[in-house]
Amino acid sequence: MRVLGVDPGLTRCGLGVVDGRPGKAVMVAVGVVRTPSGAEPGARLLYLEQEVQAWLERYDPEVVAIERVFADVNVASVMTTAHATAVALLAAARRGLPVVFHTPTEVKAAVTGSGRADKAQVTAMVTRILGLDTPPKPADAADALALAICHSWRGAQTARLTALAEAARR
Amino acid sequence: MRVLGVDPGLTRCGLGVVDGRPGKAVMVAVGVVRTPSGAEPGARLLYLEQEVQAWLERYDPEVVAIERVFADVNVASVMTTAHATAVALLAAARRGLPVVFHTPTEVKAAVTGSGRADKAQVTAMVTRILGLDTPPKPADAADALALAICHSWRGAQTARLTALAEAARR
Repeated sequence: MRVLGVDPGLTRCGLGVVDGRPGKAVMVAVGVVRTPSGAEPGARLLYLEQEVQAWLERYDPEVVAIERVFADVNVASVMTTAHATAVALLAAARRGLPVVFHTPTEVKAAVTGSGRADKAQVTAMVTRILGLDTPPKPADAADALALAICHSWRGAQTARLTALAEAARR
Repeated sequence: MRVLGVDPGLTRCGLGVVDGRPGKAVMVAVGVVRTPSGAEPGARLLYLEQEVQAWLERYDPEVVAIERVFADVNVASVMTTAHATAVALLAAARRGLPVVFHTPTEVKAAVTGSGRADKAQVTAMVTRILGLDTPPKPADAADALALAICHSWRGAQTARLTALAEAARR
């Protein structure tokens, strides 16, 4: 299952593509889209949209996994994160791709075994799982890969359980 | 100055087009875009985007005024509102249109004289200012018109002040 993981943000948006099945994951691509905080909000969203669309065309994932954002101390940053989320949602919907959301806790638990792991632990486990020579940087890139790993594992399990349930029903 | 006012929301998004100059405002169009809360988030955003784009093409405003949303008690509703805001921002940016944000307090003060006016007062003043036979409904539609009135008045004043300042500099 090929997954595009999106760590949404307007200043930095992490993107990571992973081919995964439970216990296995191979990195296809990783990167970060940056837009200058001084630019017009609409222009920033437009640029991010073009980049996400280019990634979808280039890597052709089956599903897009986005980090679910909750309220933060910083209201302004939650808003721009939500705007970036909407851009990824729109780009995926335009290609008819399903979108799934995972909370940071789910992602941490999936890759480290603990929902309370810190950023360094997540990066270390992502590096190990994907067999990378160097840790992905910045943290947004590692987070996007962690999301993609998390969903490729969970998604495959969910698909298998659904198949088992369907088989049992026959 | 022709303004498209947007009261952002995913369940109901108010849209109102007004031709205005300080003290004067004429309604061009008003409406509400609704998307079913049970539908896929991406599909809802895509539908809203198509509607906003259709309004921009049909009414050709010079500027888009969007209500600035702050944190709410209901985090989920703030998120979908932010997603709808992003859709309007993107649609405006695609046409090269400027986008301005006004807070609910600014809008209330502009149309009623009080930043603490309630919804009924805002609707009553919008109805009177635009010389409408019946009050616009639902509240999202009235809010979108109030936003457009607010910006057409403030925007025109800002433009006049800028012109005066430039004239004085010569």
